[in-house]
Amino acid sequence: MMETTRTIREGDFVTLLDPASGDAFTAKVVGGGSVNTGHGTVGLSELIGKRFGENIASNHGDELRILSANFSDKFLMIRRGPQIITLKDAALIGAFCGIQCGDVVVEGGSGSGAMTSFLANAVGSDGHVFSYDIRDDFFELARSNVKRLGLAERVTFKRADIYAGIEEKGVDAVILDVPEPWQVVGHAREALVPGGMFASYVPTVNQVEKFVEGLGEGFFPPHTFESILRDYKVRDGATRPEFQGLMHTGFITIVKKA
Amino acid sequence: MMETTRTIREGDFVTLLDPASGDAFTAKVVGGGSVNTGHGTVGLSELIGKRFGENIASNHGDELRILSANFSDKFLMIRRGPQIITLKDAALIGAFCGIQCGDVVVEGGSGSGAMTSFLANAVGSDGHVFSYDIRDDFFELARSNVKRLGLAERVTFKRADIYAGIEEKGVDAVILDVPEPWQVVGHAREALVPGGMFASYVPTVNQVEKFVEGLGEGFFPPHTFESILRDYKVRDGATRPEFQGLMHTGFITIVKKA
Amino acid sequence: MMETTRTIREGDFVTLLDPASGDAFTAKVVGGGSVNTGHGTVGLSELIGKRFGENIASNHGDELRILSANFSDKFLMIRRGPQIITLKDAALIGAFCGIQCGDVVVEGGSGSGAMTSFLANAVGSDGHVFSYDIRDDFFELARSNVKRLGLAERVTFKRADIYAGIEEKGVDAVILDVPEPWQVVGHAREALVPGGMFASYVPTVNQVEKFVEGLGEGFFPPHTFESILRDYKVRDGATRPEFQGLMHTGFITIVKKA
Amino acid sequence: MMETTRTIREGDFVTLLDPASGDAFTAKVVGGGSVNTGHGTVGLSELIGKRFGENIASNHGDELRILSANFSDKFLMIRRGPQIITLKDAALIGAFCGIQCGDVVVEGGSGSGAMTSFLANAVGSDGHVFSYDIRDDFFELARSNVKRLGLAERVTFKRADIYAGIEEKGVDAVILDVPEPWQVVGHAREALVPGGMFASYVPTVNQVEKFVEGLGEGFFPPHTFESILRDYKVRDGATRPEFQGLMHTGFITIVKKA
Repeated sequence: MMETTRTIREGDFVTLLDPASGDAFTAKVVGGGSVNTGHGTVGLSELIGKRFGENIASNHGDELRILSANFSDKFLMIRRGPQIITLKDAALIGAFCGIQCGDVVVEGGSGSGAMTSFLANAVGSDGHVFSYDIRDDFFELARSNVKRLGLAERVTFKRADIYAGIEEKGVDAVILDVPEPWQVVGHAREALVPGGMFASYVPTVNQVEKFVEGLGEGFFPPHTFESILRDYKVRDGATRPEFQGLMHTGFITIVKKA
Repeated sequence: MMETTRTIREGDFVTLLDPASGDAFTAKVVGGGSVNTGHGTVGLSELIGKRFGENIASNHGDELRILSANFSDKFLMIRRGPQIITLKDAALIGAFCGIQCGDVVVEGGSGSGAMTSFLANAVGSDGHVFSYDIRDDFFELARSNVKRLGLAERVTFKRADIYAGIEEKGVDAVILDVPEPWQVVGHAREALVPGGMFASYVPTVNQVEKFVEGLGEGFFPPHTFESILRDYKVRDGATRPEFQGLMHTGFITIVKKA
Repeated sequence: MMETTRTIREGDFVTLLDPASGDAFTAKVVGGGSVNTGHGTVGLSELIGKRFGENIASNHGDELRILSANFSDKFLMIRRGPQIITLKDAALIGAFCGIQCGDVVVEGGSGSGAMTSFLANAVGSDGHVFSYDIRDDFFELARSNVKRLGLAERVTFKRADIYAGIEEKGVDAVILDVPEPWQVVGHAREALVPGGMFASYVPTVNQVEKFVEGLGEGFFPPHTFESILRDYKVRDGATRPEFQGLMHTGFITIVKKA
Repeated sequence: MMETTRTIREGDFVTLLDPASGDAFTAKVVGGGSVNTGHGTVGLSELIGKRFGENIASNHGDELRILSANFSDKFLMIRRGPQIITLKDAALIGAFCGIQCGDVVVEGGSGSGAMTSFLANAVGSDGHVFSYDIRDDFFELARSNVKRLGLAERVTFKRADIYAGIEEKGVDAVILDVPEPWQVVGHAREALVPGGMFASYVPTVNQVEKFVEGLGEGFFPPHTFESILRDYKVRDGATRPEFQGLMHTGFITIVKKA
């Protein structure tokens, strides 16, 4: 039998739920800090020693329930600069590349740090992500988002141009969200282990075509796809897909080094 | 700098590539065994001590390249009994539930063991999966598939009816691929940590409706969606989506325990 | 050789294009009227006797080109009350029901008159549409839209409850956009010619199910489908699907009377 | 009140239904001919004078019900040579081009005659279709399909290269299903009435791009889209989309002459 409810420690992530409204807010427990939940402020150090499932009162007197936060909750904490990758696309890239605990992954570019965070979470504490970007603003945004999600130790940010080269060797995967992924083909081939995975995420068909043409020898036949997520409004006797939605995010190409 | 090409050890998974045809075959390195690749047989013990990227000759004289296999390669090793979950759906359930290294997950039913394997891979060596099924045939098939993928130590198979109860408590997620997921709602609520994730994967809209209606108090508002993966044929100047494809797999509902 | 550019007559529909902005405005030519195009006002009687392809000056001095309008232009003139059917769904219902010049069609309900207008256009001057509605507001809106599109002579509006019965017999098709189409099954069976077509357009899966269950004997196996239209942004070297779009409009069921 | 069941005449199209199996077979009533329905042979001249809804016995003794056939039934009579356009795409092209009774349309190429037949049906007995093709085999196939559907009088087949020119002037629409639609842009501009509609149907994104780039001045901004039709299996309590389906047919671009 597992320990059902351990006490909260500094460094834990919690989701605070206002049961009346259904509003939820995710934060990291750090001594001395406080968090504004939209239903009043909670001192984070007050959470330490409580158990998941217990309540805590905000300064407005609202009773908030303290819940365990997982990565899908933390993903909502990412602050947006450039268009961030959706969780569905990050998930599909991760799964089709077989990213798992202990992997070493190179990413270019860092963007807002959303894909960086996803990868850093997926490789676990034994893995590592090397993330390249040349734009100062993205660089800082990605760094602060990864830090906010408590994943800074698993990521090495490199202010460098991935089109010019990849320093790491023997990596498990190279994952790109850059405008000209074909410029990285040769560098990825050298960086990857034999059998390593190479992925590109781009918005236009033309970028897909150039990337696939540019692969040349040294890779398995590529798999290019897009995914559409369709949300449903589920009501007893009145269930239907939602009317509006994201018809397109990006094209994913996955290829294994031969 | 990382170790670029370590020597192959017993227990490693390798993908053997015939560069001429592009055919690839994934297998686990076990002393004494051999594998029929479609391009001749290779003695698995001969692989031990070689490096990834080197070649090995089959008994047909074909030179096969030895590549590192990742989970997306291993997923293809699963032998099919009942309809197995697609990798895309497993990936989306995993990501939207925030499954990560170290998690403890309950699964019902085991089916062919495809989702079991995905979860066992995702939770890493520190996590664990408890998988329920009552059908003898599925039970054995799932067990053998999970073993084939080298994940047996991370999974406890339970020949038990998940509609009747879940023994584990304090689990991070309960993930269902059963015909009547609404029968598991109360059991999941008790088994999950506060903030734990509950997912259902079903083929029909009616099952979605009954599951969502059955959730009642104690959960966040559910998120129901389906995903469509659309493959592309990418050719210079002649790129288009593939004509035929999987128009439907299943509906996924994800909900967080309040 | 056909007559290439005839002169404009009262009753013609014209699309006035501002070539500088690309803005276009469709109107019916009626003596004495005027139209505000967004680029100034044009007296409609001034158009009479001009030829398609010529210009006319608005009172703002903008030169507007006079173009022939077709039904897809006129469809944009429909004023919206209740959610109107999309042109794509109207087109698919029309085609799968085989609606053509000369057909006699019963429609329920009239709604905003968008489907009514589509059908009235499709059946031509030799066909006829009988359109049922019980709501006064829809009734008036549909009537005014059909009149605006110059199709009033082809439509008989009936302020009557189609759930209670259909007076016409020997009709080619019965087309429904009502909340409870299953209430019309028996009436449609009596109204249709042998081999006539019966269509239902509903937003939810549950309505589809009730309709299909309700068909009973007397019909071919039904064909239920939905369509998704995906717009593309086409740019030299930067072509992609549009990001946002209509993920769902309605489910169409088409069935032939046996 | 309309005539509910008139007697069948030579030239009518009938759908013969075997009520036991649900099989249906559509044919044209021509004196002297006979038709093999799969449930025995029926002499077509025996149908003359009967009423829709009555039965006729095949030479196997099966009682077949005589039903009115509409264009969606006739569309299934088309014999396939090259890939034929789907009814959904024909319907969308027709509707977004505003094709209606009385229109004059140019089509290139004739292909199997499926789009030709759709257009010939839509323009009615007062309209006309000019269909260009240079391949002898398609030319003959299209001609025989259009004749089989009873639409020969509405179509002029031209064994000519539409890339080299369009002879007709003042036409309402030019509709293309050719590999290089951009070669027809100038010819279409000259052939169309001011405000006339120009459509292209192609399988690849690259053809879309070249066509749209080639439009140049003289047209409204183009509308490019694709449509996905998703069939449903509707069963009481077990409704879901069909698993397999057509993920892609072609890209449609519609543009109005300025």
